[in-house]
Amino acid sequence: MPDTSSAWTRLVEGNAVVRFVDINLRGAGQVIFQNNPLTGLFFLAAIGWGALKADQPAVIIGAVVALLVATITAMLLDVDEASLRQGLFGFNGVLVGAAVPTFLVANASMWLILAIGAAVSTVVMLAVSNVMKTWGAPALTFPFVLTTWFLVLGAYSFGHLLIGSMGQPVLPHPVTDAVTGFRPKIWPLAEAWLKGPAQVFLINNAVSGILVVLGLLASSAWAALFALIGSGVALLISLWLGASLASIEAGLFGFSPVLTAVGLGCVFYPPSWRVTLFALLGTVFTVIVQGAMDASLAPLGIPTFTAPFVFVTWLFLLPKAKLQPHPHAPIENGVMTKDGAQPAAHPSGTASDGRS
Amino acid sequence: MPDTSSAWTRLVEGNAVVRFVDINLRGAGQVIFQNNPLTGLFFLAAIGWGALKADQPAVIIGAVVALLVATITAMLLDVDEASLRQGLFGFNGVLVGAAVPTFLVANASMWLILAIGAAVSTVVMLAVSNVMKTWGAPALTFPFVLTTWFLVLGAYSFGHLLIGSMGQPVLPHPVTDAVTGFRPKIWPLAEAWLKGPAQVFLINNAVSGILVVLGLLASSAWAALFALIGSGVALLISLWLGASLASIEAGLFGFSPVLTAVGLGCVFYPPSWRVTLFALLGTVFTVIVQGAMDASLAPLGIPTFTAPFVFVTWLFLLPKAKLQPHPHAPIENGVMTKDGAQPAAHPSGTASDGRS
Amino acid sequence: MPDTSSAWTRLVEGNAVVRFVDINLRGAGQVIFQNNPLTGLFFLAAIGWGALKADQPAVIIGAVVALLVATITAMLLDVDEASLRQGLFGFNGVLVGAAVPTFLVANASMWLILAIGAAVSTVVMLAVSNVMKTWGAPALTFPFVLTTWFLVLGAYSFGHLLIGSMGQPVLPHPVTDAVTGFRPKIWPLAEAWLKGPAQVFLINNAVSGILVVLGLLASSAWAALFALIGSGVALLISLWLGASLASIEAGLFGFSPVLTAVGLGCVFYPPSWRVTLFALLGTVFTVIVQGAMDASLAPLGIPTFTAPFVFVTWLFLLPKAKLQPHPHAPIENGVMTKDGAQPAAHPSGTASDGRS
Repeated sequence: MPDTSSAWTRLVEGNAVVRFVDINLRGAGQVIFQNNPLTGLFFLAAIGWGALKADQPAVIIGAVVALLVATITAMLLDVDEASLRQGLFGFNGVLVGAAVPTFLVANASMWLILAIGAAVSTVVMLAVSNVMKTWGAPALTFPFVLTTWFLVLGAYSFGHLLIGSMGQPVLPHPVTDAVTGFRPKIWPLAEAWLKGPAQVFLINNAVSGILVVLGLLASSAWAALFALIGSGVALLISLWLGASLASIEAGLFGFSPVLTAVGLGCVFYPPSWRVTLFALLGTVFTVIVQGAMDASLAPLGIPTFTAPFVFVTWLFLLPKAKLQPHPHAPIENGVMTKDGAQPAAHPSGTASDGRS
Repeated sequence: MPDTSSAWTRLVEGNAVVRFVDINLRGAGQVIFQNNPLTGLFFLAAIGWGALKADQPAVIIGAVVALLVATITAMLLDVDEASLRQGLFGFNGVLVGAAVPTFLVANASMWLILAIGAAVSTVVMLAVSNVMKTWGAPALTFPFVLTTWFLVLGAYSFGHLLIGSMGQPVLPHPVTDAVTGFRPKIWPLAEAWLKGPAQVFLINNAVSGILVVLGLLASSAWAALFALIGSGVALLISLWLGASLASIEAGLFGFSPVLTAVGLGCVFYPPSWRVTLFALLGTVFTVIVQGAMDASLAPLGIPTFTAPFVFVTWLFLLPKAKLQPHPHAPIENGVMTKDGAQPAAHPSGTASDGRS
Repeated sequence: MPDTSSAWTRLVEGNAVVRFVDINLRGAGQVIFQNNPLTGLFFLAAIGWGALKADQPAVIIGAVVALLVATITAMLLDVDEASLRQGLFGFNGVLVGAAVPTFLVANASMWLILAIGAAVSTVVMLAVSNVMKTWGAPALTFPFVLTTWFLVLGAYSFGHLLIGSMGQPVLPHPVTDAVTGFRPKIWPLAEAWLKGPAQVFLINNAVSGILVVLGLLASSAWAALFALIGSGVALLISLWLGASLASIEAGLFGFSPVLTAVGLGCVFYPPSWRVTLFALLGTVFTVIVQGAMDASLAPLGIPTFTAPFVFVTWLFLLPKAKLQPHPHAPIENGVMTKDGAQPAAHPSGTASDGRS
């Protein structure tokens, strides 16, 4: 759509209000890595549709409010203009704002911490980005995950924050509704496949999932493809391993793998067969980490959010070419090997090398 | 007091014993960032007063012993002389030594691990400082927090370490004594306000809080002011959100915010209106993180110590000016994009940029 | 054995299959830092002996399969050739492969996640190495620990993964079988002393421990000595502190201290009296951290693996000579101190320095 988009570009350059809207729409789009305002509009529509269908208008209101607060906080902190314009300070806010009303009851205290959390998500984005750029890696949605864990955990300690739909804290216990003697029912599984992309935004709705995929398509066919691949692979692996059928059907094993597949498959590496295989390994491992984190957070009664995606994608982005791990040999300049100490004779070998 | 302090400076320069005393007093002062021996003396007096009033002499004895062990360990490791002289290797030790006898019963095994922990706190200080200086940030009290978590958690596994006043491990559950239909009682709240600064040293005593504030005043009026602001803001927010009244009145929602407010408000940034607003956001968020961490550590039955301050202050110090987060675009030199692979055409843009 | 080893070297250089075998044997040897194929052979024999004696052949089969998968994954990722040849991409795989069948029932799903975990352990090795080399430190066995935590935690969420010998999740509670009125029984303690080195490989067998020590001796007398010292010190400290006698006798308080003692005592620092004292402090602290982590992981019902060794050894390797911690003074170039802000007058001092 070159004409439409160049007309939009002119509008954005010429008008501060349109520019502000554009930044916020791109912020929504960046939840799945898309620097595209139309994609963002589709994503907000997906949240809105799902929130209204579930009779939870606070979820879409919260998402928009938090998006605005996060963006305005970034402006007040005078962040890098180009990053701001790409929406990189909005996507964590959108997710904070969708998550808090999903799990806590909407009252004055909830709105207070939602706004505080949205502002803090921008500070955390700056902090995590600064740390991760040491290794050339992005912050991903970790600012959202960390901030929102603090907010929803706080609900146990603050009497005026009322827990809505979070699970009861329990010690981990084996799953009871795993699929046994599996006879596939096509429609619930097709729905689960579409709900994966929707659950990125904490929305349990297949129509929203279609809107999310259409939003991706508006920006990148690769991204739409990898989102569907990620959700599909997650479905197969979680069925094979015998995950809770209720969770699978709600798309809860799919949303993190969607993000891993898109991130590794076509955003942070250019798509190729080799990259696709690497991304598939990461996607499959994300399903395992989803199961692991569900168990490890059970005693706290809080959701994983997109942490499985963040941790696996970091592990798969941090390796660098030509890497040499530190050999198992003396380290230089350690607190026990200073001026006076003799340096290791062969810094790249080891004293115990059987070949020498 | 220029005369007194220059006389002290002469004494310190001329006499190794006085110098050692000076280093240790500064070490106590650095708990709240003050490189000032008189401040340290006030802080030790605050611990001593509170410990004796609570009939727990082991707390002040432990604090002094651990301070000495931590400082001597630093000397044995030949650390940087200027840092040593500023007391930067003492403040974690003081806190380890005050915390262990607060939560464990004083017996031979307790004193053994207290001494080991104090020595280790210096090693951890060096390790954490080395890591955090990558981003120009300080270690804060994380060496104390990490070391002491290990020590008190060990009490569950070691039969000769007896748990004193730690809570019973429980799964998180909503608070039961939140304030409802609030009619403010001035005196308990004033006490809570003063106990905030005292609880930095694990002391539940308003007089000790006054001694702490006076100690700050001896070094920096800004620090004293921000300590009182931090404790006051924490009081208001924790009341508003409905935290446990017993915890509020003991100052347990105030001590981390005191440290955040002083650290962000006047130590790591020069005081200004803009900085004050930023510090206030951090202070308010510290209260939420305190509630969140209380819940998340409940299953282990261990205290948060000053971790809420450490985590929030790190998040608020790590952002750097002119920051550019990594765009959602290919990363260079990753394990999947080596020699042979084509570089991303526009490293600062994205393939899915709707504007291009 | 110069003749034997130079003959082996010629074989390795001349034949790709022998070279592949050599790489994998060195991979096994690197579990305790030894770049030596004969050592690796001894270690595999130790696992094999213990696995067969315990009637768990899947443990040795898993170890070998995972070793091969991890090494082949490294080859497919084109890692640094010299590091590959030293076996640095095999040791985490061996441990993943020994651990998974130790704790989960061997069925098709277990073998699937074992193979996935082995491949992922190589990716995680690259990621952790890249992060840790920022401070000149090695990845140690953290890739094994992290990957295997995810795999065994997943067993709670996936119905087709069956938990074998993992403990039931419980809240931490004081130890009940601590040694009281201790009258030493020599033989069980001697066995415990030898089981320490064997439990590095999750093997509860004294003969395997002897094989491990002999394997070390084939490569480095220092390593063998420090392994025995590490296990002995751990035995004394855990008895003194009153740890569970059953755990002590199974070598479960010994394996991490063995690794800490060897790593700090003669691998990452050249052996000396000063280094030995430093390594001893680390070894003793590793025992405390073992107790602490046993308690903290009890609610999840998963083992610590070698995490106590990893965390303590990192803390003792990260300090660097001539270290200056960040003083408690303004940080430069923070988000609140940009272009316009006045710089701190004395960057190395503090405004609250009582000496000025």
